[in-house]
Amino acid sequence: MVLAMNNKILLSHGSGGRLSHQLIEEVLIPAFSNPILNKLDDSAIFDFSGHLAFTTDSYVVSPVFFPGGDIGKLAVCGTVNDLAMSGAIPLYLSTSFVIEEGLLMSDLKKIVASIQKAAEEAGVLVITGDVKVVNRGGADKIFINTAGVGRIAAPVNISSSNAKPGDKVILSGTLGDHGMAVMTQREGLSLSSSLKSDCAPLNQLVAEMLAASTNIHCLRDPTRGGLATTLNELAQKSKVSIRIEEDRIPIGNEVRAACELLGFDPLYVANEGKLVAIVPPEDADSILAKMQQNRYGANAAIIGEVQKEHPGRVVLKTSLGASRIVDMPLGELLPRIC
Amino acid sequence: MVLAMNNKILLSHGSGGRLSHQLIEEVLIPAFSNPILNKLDDSAIFDFSGHLAFTTDSYVVSPVFFPGGDIGKLAVCGTVNDLAMSGAIPLYLSTSFVIEEGLLMSDLKKIVASIQKAAEEAGVLVITGDVKVVNRGGADKIFINTAGVGRIAAPVNISSSNAKPGDKVILSGTLGDHGMAVMTQREGLSLSSSLKSDCAPLNQLVAEMLAASTNIHCLRDPTRGGLATTLNELAQKSKVSIRIEEDRIPIGNEVRAACELLGFDPLYVANEGKLVAIVPPEDADSILAKMQQNRYGANAAIIGEVQKEHPGRVVLKTSLGASRIVDMPLGELLPRIC
Repeated sequence: MVLAMNNKILLSHGSGGRLSHQLIEEVLIPAFSNPILNKLDDSAIFDFSGHLAFTTDSYVVSPVFFPGGDIGKLAVCGTVNDLAMSGAIPLYLSTSFVIEEGLLMSDLKKIVASIQKAAEEAGVLVITGDVKVVNRGGADKIFINTAGVGRIAAPVNISSSNAKPGDKVILSGTLGDHGMAVMTQREGLSLSSSLKSDCAPLNQLVAEMLAASTNIHCLRDPTRGGLATTLNELAQKSKVSIRIEEDRIPIGNEVRAACELLGFDPLYVANEGKLVAIVPPEDADSILAKMQQNRYGANAAIIGEVQKEHPGRVVLKTSLGASRIVDMPLGELLPRIC
Repeated sequence: MVLAMNNKILLSHGSGGRLSHQLIEEVLIPAFSNPILNKLDDSAIFDFSGHLAFTTDSYVVSPVFFPGGDIGKLAVCGTVNDLAMSGAIPLYLSTSFVIEEGLLMSDLKKIVASIQKAAEEAGVLVITGDVKVVNRGGADKIFINTAGVGRIAAPVNISSSNAKPGDKVILSGTLGDHGMAVMTQREGLSLSSSLKSDCAPLNQLVAEMLAASTNIHCLRDPTRGGLATTLNELAQKSKVSIRIEEDRIPIGNEVRAACELLGFDPLYVANEGKLVAIVPPEDADSILAKMQQNRYGANAAIIGEVQKEHPGRVVLKTSLGASRIVDMPLGELLPRIC
């Protein structure tokens, strides 16, 4: 029996029966096709030897489509970046969909195409997955979980607890692009036509940084909670303080304007294509120079340094020369930003 | 600053800020604590060498608590079983939560405790994870994704496409327990106090089966869509037919009664602690004997065999001696059963 493809996702697409198989065979396999995935057994199997990095994130961003990306691109880049931040070369992803009954099949296909495009750019394969469908109102359109595995090839020792006094803090580019793009899209604001998510896979950038020096102490992508949260985590785990200078932090004009208008501090706004590196001072310039040659590091800058006093504290030296403590946020600034 | 623990999940618990950290440090880490997880870096890192199995599933079962288990136990057993069905020894899991704002903290703690208990029984560690919180109405209480990795140690060649004519079909125990337990709980029926999900980790059972013979052709857990769907998949992928005998299929009395009352066919009802093995006839008895010694295989039985004619077809010989084709289900029988 041949079934016509429905134009909306039905509960039966998650049943494990015929419509599930049709969805897998007509939408997912053609997009992701590779020899490991195509076996469609309960697990994907591959050979591996060495240090393996393993990570996962669920993505619940709203709206699903936003300037500069969508939930599919985000689900690949977020997990690829988590692997890259451990110094790993991302290899394989799983994708698991929780879909609300009624999602347009055309929207699912766009998201799946976007996953595949981002996976190709990052050089990873989707090798296993799952689809669940919940009743209308049981979820909001679509949630995607990706888990990822990667190989730590270089002899690195990258960890949030490795920042040392004297180290330099490098930021790979402008702050706040993802958060403000999603926020203005969600609210139906068109503050600026050029506000666009920075959502991008950073694994190639990290590979080039490690080619310049394997002596990188910390690597983190400042996603939820923004740069402020990430630096607070690094300061706490490394038992150091971090001092950054407002004038050195790259922020786009549109993001700055949107933040001022809506009352957000760009230090706390989510990024999806940026990283913070904490590196020994003697390696900072060579790493920075390498970063600036990569499209995702073109605006990289040294924004501050690690100090010994007041462990756990992050301090901002403002443009006016004052110093203020940058706290970890207590509440939720931008729910469902990733 | 010390924050009191809220008695409900708030959006801020998913913000990446202070409440997120508190949730991770006070609820998740104490439950799952192990040296790999406790580093809390963007990826978990471990050494591995050999054939690696990788799988994922998202769990959306409703209700979250049901007789014999809850979504946490299910999320561990389901993924452990997917690894085991590839002949892998499960090693590590990731857990990723999508939580609806307002979930009781006490319910989350029960689920987390249940995850840890099931992980201990299965001998796996939770080494990485994620928490997202969505606004009230954006999801239904809690969804959990687990991804898992395992090691294929024995020289096995287990695949859905490996069934050969003449092979025996072994079922590890009674059918339909999970589906009917969740179904009756959901509908508020109390048909029988002894209807209980069979949700269980099957990796030890599989290890014992492989100790009896590594020559197992197919292994599958008949979850969504039940035994009928699993056998149809095996018949299609192996290009064989499968003939099973109704009289040999173990079904509990309560499940049989509930199915008759509610109009379900137990062949299509979900199981979460059962497996189907397709094995060469000469190994069937020794594998079966080994299975019957394990608590999760006590009711194991040979229920049929693989044939050459009519590839892709599954046929049931009924108690009355008639034969009927067992199709893959078209629609959704029991939404959100796992």
